[in-house]
Amino acid sequence: MKFIDLTQVTKFTPDKPFRELLYDSANLRVLAFNFEAGQEMPVHSHPADSDVTLMILEGEGEFTGANEMSARAGAMQIMPVGEPHGLKAHTRLRLLVFIAPTL
Amino acid sequence: MKFIDLTQVTKFTPDKPFRELLYDSANLRVLAFNFEAGQEMPVHSHPADSDVTLMILEGEGEFTGANEMSARAGAMQIMPVGEPHGLKAHTRLRLLVFIAPTL
Repeated sequence: MKFIDLTQVTKFTPDKPFRELLYDSANLRVLAFNFEAGQEMPVHSHPADSDVTLMILEGEGEFTGANEMSARAGAMQIMPVGEPHGLKAHTRLRLLVFIAPTL
Repeated sequence: MKFIDLTQVTKFTPDKPFRELLYDSANLRVLAFNFEAGQEMPVHSHPADSDVTLMILEGEGEFTGANEMSARAGAMQIMPVGEPHGLKAHTRLRLLVFIAPTL
């Protein structure tokens, strides 16, 4: 069992979004991304048969890519990882990403 | 793409935990469980090669099963679904469950 306390995953870095691998098995990868206001995850996709979940823990911004919409705490997009996806932060924003299965 | 607004998943039921299927594909199943104080998910396990994530969105309680510890917003346990797991709520508690791949 892996225990993670998300309230402790609060690091930010000025040059690019802070990224931390929280869990990694063949079934599931979980990553934290913390964005300073203005930082972004560029729109991208992967040619794989996996599902990706983008879950906003804190802050405000917008989902970019194939499914543009505003993003705030509690918002969650789940899609095939082949669908273009990305995120732009308007405030400090904490994002949790689940990839299943692992690419 | 499936969009879910977790701030709207706030239903509780007096007789047993409220349960809502939020997403379901071969790769990933996502479920919300909302507990009134005192309600619980009994310790259980499944004989499958999947990983289960228990993530507390709100409230306080305890993880039961093989890995007992206190549970509060931001706490996340990830384990093989064959490992006994459960949850007991001390206050109103909202839990998010990810199962990958789907059983």
